[in-house]
Amino acid sequence: MIKTIVLNNRPEGKPTLSNFEFISEEKDLNINDGEILLEAAYVSVDPYLRGRMSDAKSYVPPFELNKPVQSGVVAKVIASKNDTFTEGEYVSGMLDWKTKQVSTGEGLLKVDSSKAPLSTYLGILGMTGLTAYLGLTQIGKPVAGETIVVSGAAGAVGSVVGQIAKLLGLNVVGIAGTDEKIELLKNKFGFDAGINYNTSKDIAADIKKAAPNGVDIYFDNVGGPISDAVLFNINRFARIIICGAISVYNSTETPKSISVQPFLVKNSALMQGFIVSNYAEKFPEAMKQLATWLAEDKLTYSETIVEGFDNIPKAFIDLFEGKNKGKMIVKI
Amino acid sequence: MIKTIVLNNRPEGKPTLSNFEFISEEKDLNINDGEILLEAAYVSVDPYLRGRMSDAKSYVPPFELNKPVQSGVVAKVIASKNDTFTEGEYVSGMLDWKTKQVSTGEGLLKVDSSKAPLSTYLGILGMTGLTAYLGLTQIGKPVAGETIVVSGAAGAVGSVVGQIAKLLGLNVVGIAGTDEKIELLKNKFGFDAGINYNTSKDIAADIKKAAPNGVDIYFDNVGGPISDAVLFNINRFARIIICGAISVYNSTETPKSISVQPFLVKNSALMQGFIVSNYAEKFPEAMKQLATWLAEDKLTYSETIVEGFDNIPKAFIDLFEGKNKGKMIVKI
Repeated sequence: MIKTIVLNNRPEGKPTLSNFEFISEEKDLNINDGEILLEAAYVSVDPYLRGRMSDAKSYVPPFELNKPVQSGVVAKVIASKNDTFTEGEYVSGMLDWKTKQVSTGEGLLKVDSSKAPLSTYLGILGMTGLTAYLGLTQIGKPVAGETIVVSGAAGAVGSVVGQIAKLLGLNVVGIAGTDEKIELLKNKFGFDAGINYNTSKDIAADIKKAAPNGVDIYFDNVGGPISDAVLFNINRFARIIICGAISVYNSTETPKSISVQPFLVKNSALMQGFIVSNYAEKFPEAMKQLATWLAEDKLTYSETIVEGFDNIPKAFIDLFEGKNKGKMIVKI
Repeated sequence: MIKTIVLNNRPEGKPTLSNFEFISEEKDLNINDGEILLEAAYVSVDPYLRGRMSDAKSYVPPFELNKPVQSGVVAKVIASKNDTFTEGEYVSGMLDWKTKQVSTGEGLLKVDSSKAPLSTYLGILGMTGLTAYLGLTQIGKPVAGETIVVSGAAGAVGSVVGQIAKLLGLNVVGIAGTDEKIELLKNKFGFDAGINYNTSKDIAADIKKAAPNGVDIYFDNVGGPISDAVLFNINRFARIIICGAISVYNSTETPKSISVQPFLVKNSALMQGFIVSNYAEKFPEAMKQLATWLAEDKLTYSETIVEGFDNIPKAFIDLFEGKNKGKMIVKI
């Protein structure tokens, strides 16, 4: 039996289980010459998928209704009529939310389970790690001794950004939403300071305390009031990487916040939207650096692994409640 | 008699005449070796001066209370004990709002009234032209065939930005506040289209009409709701130059607008604060290009020239009512 999860209707605001539909089919999948048959092993759920569920202009087209949702997947090759791939190998790539599917192999990357756990190819050795490394280096242009603030710091990308920033000699301040996450930031990921935005009485003042020399780089995963608070603390020539805006993905109206323009002009500061796929030519170099650091035990990572294909939609929805610590992955 | 205009108290919101005080002194100014005596000829009033009148952290320190206000001034050398400067020459530079003053000549540039009218050294051949040229080229990185939107388009900087953009082969849309200004944009400055934000029923929709292929570059002089409307029309990889935010300079509270972050991330777009003094090493090259275009009649400019030293504060205040067309200058 093959199970598929399709987008049944577009979320209004926060996504719910009723936006998705499960389809079960009793059939055999046949492959033609050049094709491979894949069985999903690990499925990545990511906040940015929310954007593709809306019917809005964006850098990638929206998901179509009644078609499978797609995300990063690690899958096992269970049959092959393609010379490049052998039965038993694992691949990663953008694939359908399906237990089994046919592929030409185009856009798929072979991954080696003997070098690192398979789930890491969706995380620190996958888009997550690439996003952290390339966003920080290509837009942030970090210089040792500078101060960085990371929002969504205990999340998949944020926790890697903070560790890389430490490796590059920066003073690293993380913002997250529970005391448990703040402990993780400081004790597991080596952040210099952490701010719990849920218990802080004045986030801007707490940032000032944690970053007395001001903020040179802000790696923004969240947008909204947390990002407003950071703006009050930026230095001249600050670089702000807009990697995500999870705080507003579910907004049904155009969200408002303080006007960033006066802060940018006053500080000759830069704010730039970052989408990792624009930097594909840098992937090999970045992957090599990440794998080296990981092998040297200089990087660590958190995963929240949920079990079962049927739990993919719930795992996705839970992202917006901050229920994940680090990368949220569904093991099939 | 020497007249001086000092900052008497800091404006709250919109500046008023009572923020300034005139001081008249009957005295002779003596110069020592190395010094020159200057008589103001033209004084520039600029929106950015409003920022320096507040007591807030910025890239230049605030004006001190009971001290002369400073801005760009073209002055005549009326006595010299400095080998570099000869009586009768003209100079431009940041000088006090004083009818006469003593200077060491440091930071002053000689200007030649035989090559261009003296007032242009405060405008198209001065900071105004440099701001337009360097903001557009250094951050905007224009490519022929792209579309640019300029806000404050009939203003000193905006009208030059639009003309340079046309020279570089762009499709140019200007936004201004009266039909008379829109006519100027199209007939005098060669803009392809103009939008009157005061009569437009839907600025975002009008931008879409004027820029059907979307906006690649936005040269932002105003901030506020006009800039919000532009955001809805930006293209992938758009560049937004934040040159000024006249709409919020007089705000007494932190101004709010739509959150720019989702627009930037969705479009991999860049927004950067521009302050011309950060690009001083590019001034000679930029000045040369501007002077060449001006000599070839490829650039034209508007000036609003107000007469009389006593009218400097009023001319400054009138900027915030949009009473200037092009560069606002006071002739002494």
